[in-house]
Amino acid sequence: MTQPSPGHSITLRVATPAGPSSATDLVAAVADAGAALTAFDVVEAAQNELLVDITCDTLGAEHAAEVASVLSALEGVTVKKSSDRTFLVHLGGKLESTPKAPIRTRDDLSRAYTPGVARVCRAIAANPADARRLTIKRNTVAVVTDGSAVLGLGDIGPEASMPVMEGKAVLFKEFAGVDAWPVPLNARDTEQIITICKALAPAYGGINLEDIAAPRCFEIEARLREELDIPVFHDDQHGTAIVTLAALRNALKVVTKRLDDVRIVISGAGAAGHAIAKLLQAAGARDIVVCGRSGVLDPRAEYADAHRGWLATHTNPEGVTGTLKEAVVGADVFIGVSAPDLLDGADIAAMASDAVVFAMSNPDPEVDPAVAGRTAAVVATGRSDYPNQINNVLAFPGFFRGLLDAGASDITDDMLVAAAEAIAGCISGEALNPHHIIPTVFEHGVAERVAAAVAEAARRDAVAARSAAKVVEDHAPVVAEGASA
Amino acid sequence: MTQPSPGHSITLRVATPAGPSSATDLVAAVADAGAALTAFDVVEAAQNELLVDITCDTLGAEHAAEVASVLSALEGVTVKKSSDRTFLVHLGGKLESTPKAPIRTRDDLSRAYTPGVARVCRAIAANPADARRLTIKRNTVAVVTDGSAVLGLGDIGPEASMPVMEGKAVLFKEFAGVDAWPVPLNARDTEQIITICKALAPAYGGINLEDIAAPRCFEIEARLREELDIPVFHDDQHGTAIVTLAALRNALKVVTKRLDDVRIVISGAGAAGHAIAKLLQAAGARDIVVCGRSGVLDPRAEYADAHRGWLATHTNPEGVTGTLKEAVVGADVFIGVSAPDLLDGADIAAMASDAVVFAMSNPDPEVDPAVAGRTAAVVATGRSDYPNQINNVLAFPGFFRGLLDAGASDITDDMLVAAAEAIAGCISGEALNPHHIIPTVFEHGVAERVAAAVAEAARRDAVAARSAAKVVEDHAPVVAEGASA
Repeated sequence: MTQPSPGHSITLRVATPAGPSSATDLVAAVADAGAALTAFDVVEAAQNELLVDITCDTLGAEHAAEVASVLSALEGVTVKKSSDRTFLVHLGGKLESTPKAPIRTRDDLSRAYTPGVARVCRAIAANPADARRLTIKRNTVAVVTDGSAVLGLGDIGPEASMPVMEGKAVLFKEFAGVDAWPVPLNARDTEQIITICKALAPAYGGINLEDIAAPRCFEIEARLREELDIPVFHDDQHGTAIVTLAALRNALKVVTKRLDDVRIVISGAGAAGHAIAKLLQAAGARDIVVCGRSGVLDPRAEYADAHRGWLATHTNPEGVTGTLKEAVVGADVFIGVSAPDLLDGADIAAMASDAVVFAMSNPDPEVDPAVAGRTAAVVATGRSDYPNQINNVLAFPGFFRGLLDAGASDITDDMLVAAAEAIAGCISGEALNPHHIIPTVFEHGVAERVAAAVAEAARRDAVAARSAAKVVEDHAPVVAEGASA
Repeated sequence: MTQPSPGHSITLRVATPAGPSSATDLVAAVADAGAALTAFDVVEAAQNELLVDITCDTLGAEHAAEVASVLSALEGVTVKKSSDRTFLVHLGGKLESTPKAPIRTRDDLSRAYTPGVARVCRAIAANPADARRLTIKRNTVAVVTDGSAVLGLGDIGPEASMPVMEGKAVLFKEFAGVDAWPVPLNARDTEQIITICKALAPAYGGINLEDIAAPRCFEIEARLREELDIPVFHDDQHGTAIVTLAALRNALKVVTKRLDDVRIVISGAGAAGHAIAKLLQAAGARDIVVCGRSGVLDPRAEYADAHRGWLATHTNPEGVTGTLKEAVVGADVFIGVSAPDLLDGADIAAMASDAVVFAMSNPDPEVDPAVAGRTAAVVATGRSDYPNQINNVLAFPGFFRGLLDAGASDITDDMLVAAAEAIAGCISGEALNPHHIIPTVFEHGVAERVAAAVAEAARRDAVAARSAAKVVEDHAPVVAEGASA
């Protein structure tokens, strides 16, 4: 069932004797080897020999080696070089720091640097709020991690987390024009991470916490939200919760059920499960049951983690007990942010009619989506190769765009709900169907709608900066606009 | 003596009746007001009215207001708006974070982000040295400050320091292609700053400390150099010392004296003075006398600061005592990194014949350079409006370019001296004269020469990375270059 993937794309430089069928032979051999050809470029054509770059998606390292040896086995063909395109994209990193205006002359220098810069420094010293207007703080977000829970790779450390953090920064810019900078920290102590983030805050208009292990991530986020005057977002919590709520809104429209009526079972009591439960409640859900590894969280049990204790006492109004498999019987909605293959077709069949199944464990879902689809009305996953991908990239770029546009100092539940509604609203009534409850990642306009909704919520909740005063005129040495002699 | 400056450039939007002399009247009025017109742009031309943008350099805020009111006083003329061009350059900050390759398709996403990125993360986890090849660490420098000694403005704090740090980052990129990122820290405790810099190191290939007050800056630099495996440069020390040594090399060529023969008086026992004394010694100088605020440092005195104690015991071999004015009598070289107007023409006249005077206090030098020039053979300052500007921008961009190219883990005296020689070498024998001992900031090729010299010194001193292994092939899933079936 696995397909050749662009994540395993290679380019082979191949020398072949020039003959009437030499190109077609190579193409056929690539196909025979099970790889998906994506480009065939002639590098050099001599009378007797052709040098070509063959780019193809493979299944992985072993398969890539196989493709090369199949080509090598062709008469007269030599594989000169093999390049892994994913590694090529990463050479030297994926981001750069770029000046907005060039420094070509002494005059440029005297405005952007000394001596002119001193006046701008003095203006900010006199009015610190001007940092949001006269420095990169206006549009810049720190992507902070300690590398302790990176993707599905676990605790790989700050250096190895960089490709993900850089990638995240790239997405911020590409999807919403937000400048983001990776801040992987060689630090593991909760207090130390909090201290460092507070010290770094002057340069940033917001902090995006990323891939920090639970329960440390909760304490860090809560403390920073309390102690900083810039918004702090934990994508693994808030981003996932926003997109899940967006998808659920539309899924419930498809099955014509109401959020405050349905019974929702969440599998996973970590950062994502916790945030999803809280946000669904803020949006009106009432009957949520959360399962950890040993089944339904028990309000009478003692949990070492405060967030589990909170979940145990603030969810499950019916007092359900037992295993996950027992909990899903008769449930309207299943939301999985946990581990692969916890449920089978029989479990999904035992749910209520018109069941909604979000199996988001990645890359292997809690239940095979094809199997779930036999009885469930709506199925979504975290994967790009099934319909209804629940992907945080729908939320975080636009969310921060809105925060920065409003000059927001904090994040409210209202903003998270507004972002979810905006994403859900991207699917119009006629386009909504069981296989299309959420926009795809590249759908145009999603980030803009999320940004507008978040900025509006920020103003409603009074966490936006009071005004976007015209700082140029504020500091203009002479008369302001409209003044006359 | 002060001239209108581009650091005080304004743009006035002016409405004037359209008449045969309306433009010339405006131009004449700007000149009469003592401003320097740099651009005259017609925005709108109607039958009866002209709307023009007049851009001119002024002396400062008060003078700018005067220029506007002189224009307003002209018959029928209205000043609609005034913009300060220095503030305009700073709106929203001077830097952005830019993706090196766009993400336009699902395939791009799967290579630069999930799922492809996971393989790159794993490669770095397995071999941390690959972070220098597969992440921005390869080409990126942190510009770290606590905002405690910014320009001549003193302790203005991290937010207000940002325009300088951003400007520095712009210069790194423009002059040497180095990606730099501002890291202003809301922290003042020495240990805390050290801890934070160590935690931030995974993302960076080097640290440039900037505008941190003495003596804290010494401890921070020394500890980071010892405890980190990336180079740590303190521009206020090393940058200034490199450029000073470069200028001195050429100045001594002009007066045909030798570095190991001359008596050098340094005014200023702070970060810059300390670094200059050390580097001049490393380059061969033997007779250096350092003066603090209360005169020549005394080897028998007790100094609270370790660096002053070091200077007192490691310089002044002749045991000179007394004031600065007494110390310069008979000296061959004066180097000022201290305060304005400490010396007068008589003091310079009392120096040895063919004296060299570097009066680098900024913006007001230790001695008026015009006055010093009456008797000294060579005069240099830190100002752009005199010949021989001793400007750190000649050193730091190329210096870090060389460090990053070599994958250097540390900075050695040999590298600092090599950088100075490279800068000095940019002035060819025939071009060398008392008014041209050092290249100007925009001279082509300076950074490249510095970079090459530093990288070579890094290899000589064995602080360069052992090899620039081809990481793409390292991680290629199949055969390496040249392999065949």
